[in-house]
Formats: sequence, C-alpha cells, structure tokens
Amino acid sequence: MVVYQTSDLTAASFSVALFGLAATTVLLLMGAAWVGQKWRIPVALCAIAALIGIGSVYEAREAWLAGQGVPVVYHYVGWSISMPLQVIALFFLARTAGTLTAGLFWRLTVVSALMVFVRYLGEAQFMHPTLAFLIGLVFWLYLLGEFYFGRMDDVVRASTGDHLRRGYFWLRLIVTIGWAIYPLGNFLTAFAGMVDDGSLSVAYNVADILNRMAFGIAVLATAFLVTEESARA
Amino acid sequence: MVVYQTSDLTAASFSVALFGLAATTVLLLMGAAWVGQKWRIPVALCAIAALIGIGSVYEAREAWLAGQGVPVVYHYVGWSISMPLQVIALFFLARTAGTLTAGLFWRLTVVSALMVFVRYLGEAQFMHPTLAFLIGLVFWLYLLGEFYFGRMDDVVRASTGDHLRRGYFWLRLIVTIGWAIYPLGNFLTAFAGMVDDGSLSVAYNVADILNRMAFGIAVLATAFLVTEESARA
Amino acid sequence: MVVYQTSDLTAASFSVALFGLAATTVLLLMGAAWVGQKWRIPVALCAIAALIGIGSVYEAREAWLAGQGVPVVYHYVGWSISMPLQVIALFFLARTAGTLTAGLFWRLTVVSALMVFVRYLGEAQFMHPTLAFLIGLVFWLYLLGEFYFGRMDDVVRASTGDHLRRGYFWLRLIVTIGWAIYPLGNFLTAFAGMVDDGSLSVAYNVADILNRMAFGIAVLATAFLVTEESARA
Amino acid sequence: MVVYQTSDLTAASFSVALFGLAATTVLLLMGAAWVGQKWRIPVALCAIAALIGIGSVYEAREAWLAGQGVPVVYHYVGWSISMPLQVIALFFLARTAGTLTAGLFWRLTVVSALMVFVRYLGEAQFMHPTLAFLIGLVFWLYLLGEFYFGRMDDVVRASTGDHLRRGYFWLRLIVTIGWAIYPLGNFLTAFAGMVDDGSLSVAYNVADILNRMAFGIAVLATAFLVTEESARA
Amino acid sequence: MVVYQTSDLTAASFSVALFGLAATTVLLLMGAAWVGQKWRIPVALCAIAALIGIGSVYEAREAWLAGQGVPVVYHYVGWSISMPLQVIALFFLARTAGTLTAGLFWRLTVVSALMVFVRYLGEAQFMHPTLAFLIGLVFWLYLLGEFYFGRMDDVVRASTGDHLRRGYFWLRLIVTIGWAIYPLGNFLTAFAGMVDDGSLSVAYNVADILNRMAFGIAVLATAFLVTEESARA
Repeated sequence: MVVYQTSDLTAASFSVALFGLAATTVLLLMGAAWVGQKWRIPVALCAIAALIGIGSVYEAREAWLAGQGVPVVYHYVGWSISMPLQVIALFFLARTAGTLTAGLFWRLTVVSALMVFVRYLGEAQFMHPTLAFLIGLVFWLYLLGEFYFGRMDDVVRASTGDHLRRGYFWLRLIVTIGWAIYPLGNFLTAFAGMVDDGSLSVAYNVADILNRMAFGIAVLATAFLVTEESARA
Repeated sequence: MVVYQTSDLTAASFSVALFGLAATTVLLLMGAAWVGQKWRIPVALCAIAALIGIGSVYEAREAWLAGQGVPVVYHYVGWSISMPLQVIALFFLARTAGTLTAGLFWRLTVVSALMVFVRYLGEAQFMHPTLAFLIGLVFWLYLLGEFYFGRMDDVVRASTGDHLRRGYFWLRLIVTIGWAIYPLGNFLTAFAGMVDDGSLSVAYNVADILNRMAFGIAVLATAFLVTEESARA
Repeated sequence: MVVYQTSDLTAASFSVALFGLAATTVLLLMGAAWVGQKWRIPVALCAIAALIGIGSVYEAREAWLAGQGVPVVYHYVGWSISMPLQVIALFFLARTAGTLTAGLFWRLTVVSALMVFVRYLGEAQFMHPTLAFLIGLVFWLYLLGEFYFGRMDDVVRASTGDHLRRGYFWLRLIVTIGWAIYPLGNFLTAFAGMVDDGSLSVAYNVADILNRMAFGIAVLATAFLVTEESARA
Repeated sequence: MVVYQTSDLTAASFSVALFGLAATTVLLLMGAAWVGQKWRIPVALCAIAALIGIGSVYEAREAWLAGQGVPVVYHYVGWSISMPLQVIALFFLARTAGTLTAGLFWRLTVVSALMVFVRYLGEAQFMHPTLAFLIGLVFWLYLLGEFYFGRMDDVVRASTGDHLRRGYFWLRLIVTIGWAIYPLGNFLTAFAGMVDDGSLSVAYNVADILNRMAFGIAVLATAFLVTEESARA
Repeated sequence: MVVYQTSDLTAASFSVALFGLAATTVLLLMGAAWVGQKWRIPVALCAIAALIGIGSVYEAREAWLAGQGVPVVYHYVGWSISMPLQVIALFFLARTAGTLTAGLFWRLTVVSALMVFVRYLGEAQFMHPTLAFLIGLVFWLYLLGEFYFGRMDDVVRASTGDHLRRGYFWLRLIVTIGWAIYPLGNFLTAFAGMVDDGSLSVAYNVADILNRMAFGIAVLATAFLVTEESARA
C-alpha cells in the first residue's frame, strides 16, 4: 500500500470525495425507500450517480498514489455514467409536476452522453481538441437551455408546490455552476497545454462534491419537503 | 496497480462498461421491488445478468491491463450466464401476457446455454471452429425464430397492453442486433484469423452496453409502463 | 493478476461456476422474500449454500491459477457448509407438508457434516483412506435412505400438493446423482492414486453447478408453484 | 496468494469457520426480519457477532498463511466485540420474558468487555499474566453467576413459555462450555509457555463454531419456536 | 500481508475500532428500519458516520502496518465526513421535539465542516498552526454553545419526553468530552512538536469508539425509548 502524507492535498481531496460519496450513496439509497412513490426514481438515480462516483474516484486515487498523475480518462469514465444519470434525475424530478414527452427524455440522455464522449475524444486526441471542445460546449449550452427555457421549466413553474420550484431552482444552479468547471478544465488542458500536477484533480474533486453529493442531497431534501407539503395540504 | 492512459480506448470502454453495469444492476435491483408481482422475475433476471457482467468485465479489464490482450474466454464466461438469463427474462416477460409451456422454457434455456458453450468449444479449438460456428449460428437462429414466429410472439400479440407489445418489439430488436455481433466476432477470430488487439474487446463492450444495460432498462421501463397502464384501466 | 488462456478449461469451469453461483445466490436471496412464509427457510438455506459456494470456488480458482493444482481441501471446505445446508433445506421443504421430529433434523445435520468430515480425514491421510471412504459411503447411503424410505418421504407422499411431490422427486434425484460424484472422486484419488491435473476439478465444478445451482433453483421453483397452487385452491 | 495444502488442518479449520460464520451471518440477518418485534434485537446482535467473526477469522487465517503462526491478538480483537455482543443478546433474550434493570445491562456489558481486555493485557505482557488470568477468571465467573443465579434466570424461570426456558438453558450451556476454552487457552499460553503451532488456533476455531454459530442459530431457533408457541396460544 | 504482533497495541486498537465500527454500522442500519419515522434520519446519519469510520480506520491501519506511522491526514479525512454528520444527527434528534430553522441547520453543517478543514490546514502547514488551532477552537466552542445554550437546547427542554431530554443530555456530553481529544491532539502535534509514534493514534481510536460508536448507539437507544414511551402514552 502507498501511504500518502498529510501535505498531499490531492490525495486528501480524493479521500474526502471517496468517503463523502460513500456517505451520500448510503443516505440516498435509504432515502429512496422513505420518499413518496413518484420521487423514488430521481432519488435512486442520484444514489446510483454517487455510487458510480465511488468507483471512479477510488480508481483515480489509486492512479494518483501510483505516482504518475491522474490520466484525465479516469474522470471521464465516471462522468460518462453520472452526468446522464443526473440529467435524467432532473427530468424525473420535473415530471413529478406534470407530463413530459419521451422525446425530451431521449434528447437529454443522448446529448449528455455525447457531451462527455466528445470531450473525451478531444482530450484523447482522437478528434481535434478545439472542435471537440466547441461541440461539447454546444451540448452543454443545449442542456442549460432545456433546463432554463424548455418544457421542464414550464412544468415546474406551473406546479403548485413551493418546495418543488425552489428545489428545481437550486438543482439547476448546481448544474450550471458545478458543471462549468468541466469545460473550463477541458479548455485548460486542451488549449493552454496544462498538465495535471494534482491541482486539476483537486478542482474536479471539489466540483464532484458539489455535483454528485450536494445535487443528490438536494434532490432528497426536495422530495422530503414536497412530500411533507402535500401531506399537510 | 496498472494505470491506463487517456488514449487507451479499450481500457476506457471496459471501465465505462463496468460502471454502466454497476449502475444498471443497482437500478434494476431496486426496480424489482417497485414493479408489480408478475414483473419481479424478468426485472430480477436482468439485474442478475448485469451483475454477472460486472464480474466478467472487471476480470477482462484486469487481463487487458496485464498487457497480454484479453483471451476471449473472459467474454464467454460472462455470456454463458447472462445470455440464458436474458432469454429467460424475455420468456417471463411474454408470460405476463398469457400461458407458455414449461417445454418452451427448457428449450430456450438449453439452446441459449449450448449456443455459448459450442462457440467457446470452437474458439478454444476443442471442436472444429467452422462446425462450432455453424452450430452456434443454428442455435441463435432457433432463438430468433422462437422470438419472432413462436408461441411467445403469439401471446404478446394477443395481449391487450399496448406497452407490452412495444416493449417486446424493442427487446427482440436489441437481441437481434446486439447479439449479432457475437457470431460476427466469432467468425472473424475463427476464420479470418483476427487476433484481438483491443478493438474486438471494444466492440464486445459496446455490444454488452446494448445487450446488458439497454435490455435490462427496457424491461424495467416496460414493467413500469404496463403497471401504470393497467392501474389506469 | 494471473491471466488464464482460452484453452484452460479448468479455469473456465471455475469462472462459470463462480458467476453461476453468484447469479443463483442473488436470485434465491430475492426469491426468499417472494415466497410464502413456510418456504422462506428452505429457499434461504439454498441461497446461503450458493453464497458459500462463491467463496470456496473463488479460492479454489485462485489456487488453480497459482499453478500448483487445487488441493482437494478447497472443495471440502465448501462442502462442509453447503452439504448440511442442503440436507436441512430438503428437511424444511418436506416439513411444509407435515410434522417432522427434531430428532430427524439432528440426525440429518450431524450425519451430513460427519460424511464430509470423514472423507476429508481420509483425503488428508489423518485416517486410513479406505476406512474413511467406507464410513463416508455409509453416511451417504443413510441420507439416501432417509430421503427415499424415511419419514420425509412419507410426509411428502401424503401431501395433497402435486407440485410439492414432483419438486421433492427432482430434488432427491439431484442429490442422488449429483452427490454420487463426490464419493467417486474420493475413490479415484484415494485408491486409484489419481492426482488432480484439473479434470477432477472440472468434474467437481459440473457437479457443483448441478448440486448448488440446479438444486436451489428447483427449491425456489417448487416454492413458487406450490404457492400458486394453494392460492388457486 | 498462498495456497494451503490438504494436510494443513489449521488452515482448513480457519476456512470452515470463515464460511460457517458467513452462512450464519446471512441466515441471522434474514432471520431478524422474520421473527417477532421483541426478538429482532437478540437475533440482530448474534448476526453482528458472527459478522465480526468473519473479519477476525479472515485476518487470523491470512496471518497463519503468512507462515508465522497466529499472534493471539487476532483472536482477542474479534472477541472484544463478539463476547459483549453475545452477553447483551442473552440479556435481551431474557428481557422478552420480563423487565430487567439498566444497571444489569451495564454491568454485563462492562464486565464482558473488561474480561477480554484484561486477558489481552496479560497475553501482551502489559500486565502480569497471572494477575490478568485471575482477574479474567473472576469476570467470567461473575457472568456465569448472573446467568445461573441472577435476575435473568429468575425472569426466564417465571416465564410461561416452555421454549424460552429450554432455549435459555441451552444458550447458557453453550456459553459455559464454549467460553471455558478461552481461559484454558489463556492459561496454557500464559503459564505453561505454550507456543501456538496451529493446534491452539484449531481449538479456538472449534470454540468459535460453537460460540458464534451454534449460539446465534440457537437464539434464532428459540425466537421462531417462541413466536409459533405464542401464535398458537 | 503484514502480520502485527500481540504487543502492537496501536494495531490492536485500530482493529478493535474497525470491527466495532462495523458492528455499529450494521446495528444502526438495521435499527433505522425499526424506529419511528421521525427517528430514521438521525439513526441513519449515525450509521453512515460509523460506515465512513470503517473506511478511514481501515486505511489508517494499513498506513500503520506499512511501518511509517499514521499521517494525521488519515484521521482528518474520516472526521471531515463523520463530524458534520453527527452534528446534523443531533440537529434532527432535537427537531423531533419541535421546529428548528433551516438557518441553524446550515450554520451547524458549515461550522463543523470548517472546523475539521481549518485544523487540517494547520496540521498540513498550509496555514499557520497557531492560527488554525485557534480558529478550530472557536468553531468547536460555537458548536458547544449551540448545543448547551442555543435553540436546540430550548426545544429539547420544552419537550414532554423524559427519555429525549436524557438522551440529549448524554449525547451532548459525549460530544463535549469525546471531541475534546481532537483539539488536544491538534495542540500536541502542532505546538509541542509531538510526533505520532502510535500512542496518538491509540488515543484517537479510543475517542472514535466513544464518538462514533457510543454516540450512534445512544441515538438508537433514545429512539427506541422515546418510541416506546409515546406508544405507552
């Protein structure tokens, strides 16, 4: 076993992300059994996104401790599963307030998966980095467009529940801010020729804490508050 | 630990398959508790097929990272369990719409297990590769025949549920297309003397994503939609 | 990690047994929650027997991959737990049809545990191999006697359920045929001086697939069918 | 991996204990959901004692396979958790028949934990071995006194349930006989200067099978029988 | 594997903490399903804090067995998750007795997370140790202030339940005493230049047993007693 030292901030951030994701996973898995029937799917999807995060963060930490830096593919592997899962979780969360078409579901799923895949192609030099960066950006902006101006926003806005509207507002904000770090990191390594000496991994870990933990817990909290609200009404 | 690099597409595809299968397994295991009683068995069987996939993909990835290519037996070991499981899942899915004989169950189970076994015998040179390929092909065509023209198709066609018919249509299509890659890969390595430099494993991983993940999730979605439908009726 | 090749039939049979036992374990653990109250215990015991099989087959495979053959103790360790469990499962299955004495329970448990222990003593040369073989044989015949001519058979015969009788018939047959391979293997290594070059392990794995998987699934299927039957009546 | 041979009785006894504890753990965890509400706690505590046993036996086996004997601390680490758990399980079992004071709970917990701790201090030469042995003996006799002549015995004796009385009788007997091997082993290594060449570990493993497995299963069986009895009444 | 000897008190304390945390985790996870609806969250949070403890204690033990002492970061990684979890558990426990503002929730969460983070910065020399120590102290005192004189104390005091008041009293005491060891250890390493030769880890393990195990079990016991009390009333 490789023992990391107290001053190794990168290893510490990986470990905190690892344990935090484990805590989030168990909480959300238990929470999925506590919330109302409509809310089980979004909570379960967030639990699974956190679970996948445990695996990918663990492997990224192993790579870091092996002393050769963390190839960025270790991050992309986890995102390729967790990002679509979170977009779908937001979809099912909005669907608790009204009907959404299957077409929207497929667009969100495919675009979020392609966004991660195209960025990976650019980072791995299988595609021209600039092109990949721009396509990834377009996909990301499309997703934001759906969240802010699309049918999901309409449905949530029209809902009677106060907590649902507030929950959707915060979740969208987490996705907007938290996911912005990925194109930024992509930009820095692809154009500015930055090599990950550990600081990029720290940034990604902080983003993951926001995106995978705060996002999932916010979904669970929204589910609880909405359930309470409707029980009172 | 062996650290793989960003440009190692084969390792990346193994890792994505690994995490995707883990996500599918947890979702289906949870889903099996959410669907109606008749639907628990097909959903559980798909969950188990995905779970087995985690183990076999993990070991195949380890073999790949050990740097000696992936002996094709690593794929066959997983298929020997997951393929019969999926055929049986389709059987129990069709059985939610009407009675099916135990004889059909046994034929499907035995033929799907033999199909994988015979192909393995060919690949391992325990049997003449051409003969093994042809026998495997016959078994596959028999299964397709049962799915398209057999009693299962009759029962589903006669069902009142719109969603069941559509679900069966898509699942059959996944099996038709997704499973076609296995005889193709078998053909290429057995006749064309192709040696797996990683690209065949990528192809198998993509096929596994389709067969083990998309298939299982489609079964779960069908179960949800049919349950909703019958609740409304 | 040791990578095994496609032509290593012994390693392949270990891996198939491993994944098959994992699939069986999960299916039976889930199934124990689905069957009627009386049936939970036999199904759970079969699930546990399969779970123990995962551990012992995994360790036996590791020993095989380490390249020194599989010391037969690896098989005995698993059997020492799984065989008594299966005998007790059959006892509780028969008990769903009528009362059985606690004395019978203790005789079956002790004799099945001693049967495995005595054979091990013979294989390890702690006891004269011929003597151990003969005592083991007597214990096995005693168990078969109880299954075919004892109180369990009477109780099942007297039951009204068609499916229970048929299930008991098949389970007894599995135990009769599947367990016959163990004294045979014991005989071959103890008397004929056979050294396990892998083929004996293949035979034991095939027997394990029959005894641990088929047995457990047959118990689950019987439980389902009997529950359905009594719901209809 | 270290492969142990068929004639290595110590490794075999560790492996049997390992698999047996795993089987017991799963059975008791499942059983805790099947028994009446009052019985969940004692059954769950026995399940946890068996679970802890898996971990400590696994590590002791690893130490044995590393070829340097098993430092006795590996046994004590497991006992430090499992012995108090079992004493508390017996307390809660007796409490199903009547009220017991919190003071008794605390005395039993503290004395059983101290008994293991003091013996460890003696074995590790942190305390004079004779003194530690004697203090440990006094603690053990105190526990036996509580079981045979204390409030727990009164409560159980006064209970109407036949099965509870019989269950308590057997559990107390298991603790009396099974736990006697620990001060005996302690005596042999501390005074007679015995060095563990594996035979002491075999003895401890046999005792563990009695204490952790038979004890837990007897608690579960008592819970079942009492529940049945009170359902009939 | 590294085998530790009987006289290695540090390794023994790590192992006891490891198995004790595992036992606590399973007990609390099961207990979360047994208590009333309001009590599920605090019990679940304590279960998760214990679960995280398993991971961090395991890794700290591995570091210790690797023979280079335990870098203090291994402790901080676990505390960064478990301390906020326990503060939030206490918050939700008090909330069973009356309404508490979301603002208090956020203050407790953020302050407890910052307390651990600032101490880590000091230990890792990323911040001046004295400054970090003092800021950490202020945060700790703030938390104690909330527990003793804040809204949580008011709410619990005003509650009718005797057991809730007593439970809160003990839990607060555990946090007061048990958490005092952390600033003490921080002080010793940061100012007195103490280097951890194992004895500090022993102290931390004893504190962890108090904080993570006793705390969680006390929450579960309170939940049981309050539920019983309100069932009787």
